[in-house]
Amino acid sequence: MITLASDFGTPYPAAMKGAILRRSDARLVDVSHDLPRGSIRASAFWLREVLPTFPPATHLAVVDPGVGTDRAVLVARAGEHTLVGPDNGLLVPAARRLAAEADAGVDWFHADPGDPASTTFHGRDVFAPLAAEIHEAVAARGVGALDDHDRLTPAEPVDCRLPEATVENDGAEGFVLAVDDFGNVITNVPGDFLDGRDVVRVNGEKVPVGATFGSVDPGSPLVVVGSHGYVECDVNDGRGDEWFGLSPGNTIEIDGVE
Amino acid sequence: MITLASDFGTPYPAAMKGAILRRSDARLVDVSHDLPRGSIRASAFWLREVLPTFPPATHLAVVDPGVGTDRAVLVARAGEHTLVGPDNGLLVPAARRLAAEADAGVDWFHADPGDPASTTFHGRDVFAPLAAEIHEAVAARGVGALDDHDRLTPAEPVDCRLPEATVENDGAEGFVLAVDDFGNVITNVPGDFLDGRDVVRVNGEKVPVGATFGSVDPGSPLVVVGSHGYVECDVNDGRGDEWFGLSPGNTIEIDGVE
Amino acid sequence: MITLASDFGTPYPAAMKGAILRRSDARLVDVSHDLPRGSIRASAFWLREVLPTFPPATHLAVVDPGVGTDRAVLVARAGEHTLVGPDNGLLVPAARRLAAEADAGVDWFHADPGDPASTTFHGRDVFAPLAAEIHEAVAARGVGALDDHDRLTPAEPVDCRLPEATVENDGAEGFVLAVDDFGNVITNVPGDFLDGRDVVRVNGEKVPVGATFGSVDPGSPLVVVGSHGYVECDVNDGRGDEWFGLSPGNTIEIDGVE
Repeated sequence: MITLASDFGTPYPAAMKGAILRRSDARLVDVSHDLPRGSIRASAFWLREVLPTFPPATHLAVVDPGVGTDRAVLVARAGEHTLVGPDNGLLVPAARRLAAEADAGVDWFHADPGDPASTTFHGRDVFAPLAAEIHEAVAARGVGALDDHDRLTPAEPVDCRLPEATVENDGAEGFVLAVDDFGNVITNVPGDFLDGRDVVRVNGEKVPVGATFGSVDPGSPLVVVGSHGYVECDVNDGRGDEWFGLSPGNTIEIDGVE
Repeated sequence: MITLASDFGTPYPAAMKGAILRRSDARLVDVSHDLPRGSIRASAFWLREVLPTFPPATHLAVVDPGVGTDRAVLVARAGEHTLVGPDNGLLVPAARRLAAEADAGVDWFHADPGDPASTTFHGRDVFAPLAAEIHEAVAARGVGALDDHDRLTPAEPVDCRLPEATVENDGAEGFVLAVDDFGNVITNVPGDFLDGRDVVRVNGEKVPVGATFGSVDPGSPLVVVGSHGYVECDVNDGRGDEWFGLSPGNTIEIDGVE
Repeated sequence: MITLASDFGTPYPAAMKGAILRRSDARLVDVSHDLPRGSIRASAFWLREVLPTFPPATHLAVVDPGVGTDRAVLVARAGEHTLVGPDNGLLVPAARRLAAEADAGVDWFHADPGDPASTTFHGRDVFAPLAAEIHEAVAARGVGALDDHDRLTPAEPVDCRLPEATVENDGAEGFVLAVDDFGNVITNVPGDFLDGRDVVRVNGEKVPVGATFGSVDPGSPLVVVGSHGYVECDVNDGRGDEWFGLSPGNTIEIDGVE
């Protein structure tokens, strides 16, 4: 199985699929082709959250503002999973999460990019063919096939760490990791900060803590523990990003209310 | 085969796919992940129109504004098809249509939701794993497997009926079921109301009846019998919703013109 | 393998998939369902660029503003590829490109449309069932099966040629073929016009020639040889269509700068 993720919109992802299917019969599954455009950190967050739901697979991911420059091509092995993409940090949080769930470490490799036909579409010309090749090697000989693959060399990746929130007894300072399609604002404040609280202040505004969207009236704001385990700032049947005025990268202060 | 439908946008549907593929090798086919957000009735309309084009399958559909509340988990058997989703009316028109096409009734079940990891993403934590489990049971033993499945109990569903239009000789009163991505306004007035008419009034405006979009000039309005068998208010090479000023849920009066 | 392309958005493509899957077990791969709406020429460009990345397949493509009129149903054989869609020019550039890559000519056929259930959704009622039937025939007997298929008759297609640019030593006049989701403006001026140049004028504005997006600062314009081999007018980490004020169909003058 090869999963595909990018910020390409349409129809470029189809060219990656064509390039793979010329080289492999693998099942293809789209993760998303609307990852936050050009945003490595927010895209890395989504990959870290979504890829671990899959069984062992080859994960191809391309958010690549440095396409055509000398940024390297990265392959990672994390347990039984393999990841392929640009060496710009994008794959790092997902690879670490996948490895942690397998009680393993990550093995990182740089791949020979070959001689791509374009300088602007390495998704089609470099990453998709490489993912197909890696997938076939792993299908034939297991993830150990990466150790002696003739296009791979052990390497250190460009790092990417999602920032951690500062949490104290009565307050937390964090930042906005992502906003989803519903407008839910996903912060990096761990959900257990909300344990035992009924109300908090978010950047000064009093907001109820809910267990579900339906715990407040439609159009009303709330904070919940989201499906990623973090505090989310949401509006029932509405957009949290608009109500709270928050975007990815913004800082957020959450205070307990007596 | 498992079909997937939701109002999740991206990338949450991928987490449902991952959760299924950890449990089943089933072919996955996306119906849509841009169903009208939070709108059970309009989403139920689309499912009723699209699911019957498929061969027998497990249909997973999640439009679930009550996620995390005590709304139940519904499984329906309709002929050789199985449907899985929230018990909020969403599946009901599609299940009835599928059963009618098989000259059968619908059998409804509530499913034990298990102990979901989140209160806000039951698509990933409840519905997708259940759909995989149901699909495997049906693949092994046929749709009869639902009768003694240990997570299922016969139940009455929350009902959802799409409203019917009032049609008389020279006029019809109905309402807008949905607007498609082209801007075509799909009403619930049966298409045969247009039989033998060349012109009608839609909410007072005179509009020609066409057999095809091409029967009027680009940018001009018309009414046609749409692909769902209902009267549609359209604009050739333009948006009917804008020209007619109509949205889902609006009422519509269509009068014959002498 | 059957690839699917249309300008249908969602959820109509699912009805095409259902109609195919009732008739065939073929692998389905989406090319795009957001082809430029109603625009045959820009859609034909995308098909010509993307379909050749695929291994031999049946390619179903529907951008069909004339649906329900007497426009014919076209099937094309190009090497080992087969194309199915409306006879309005849409398939022609892709079929010619696929045939050229196989050192072959294109064989064109009109297909009996049968008796479609609707006048407005031939994707579901005509093209998808036909693509499934053609695919099964080719899977059983090879592309020669088209020669004696009882629904096919040799025919001349409605032509569609993408215009060619006029290129001289120090200047080129062309036009905009398409704008991609990144806002990159894809012209029909061959990329080798940029060979050896550092700066050009685009409609009078001086712009640097870059090898990659990263060769200019974020937000700055450049021209590159795009992944299709043509001159593209882009902005690094921004939208070229907005900076240059260009849309599909616009003319463009590129001049060398001393």
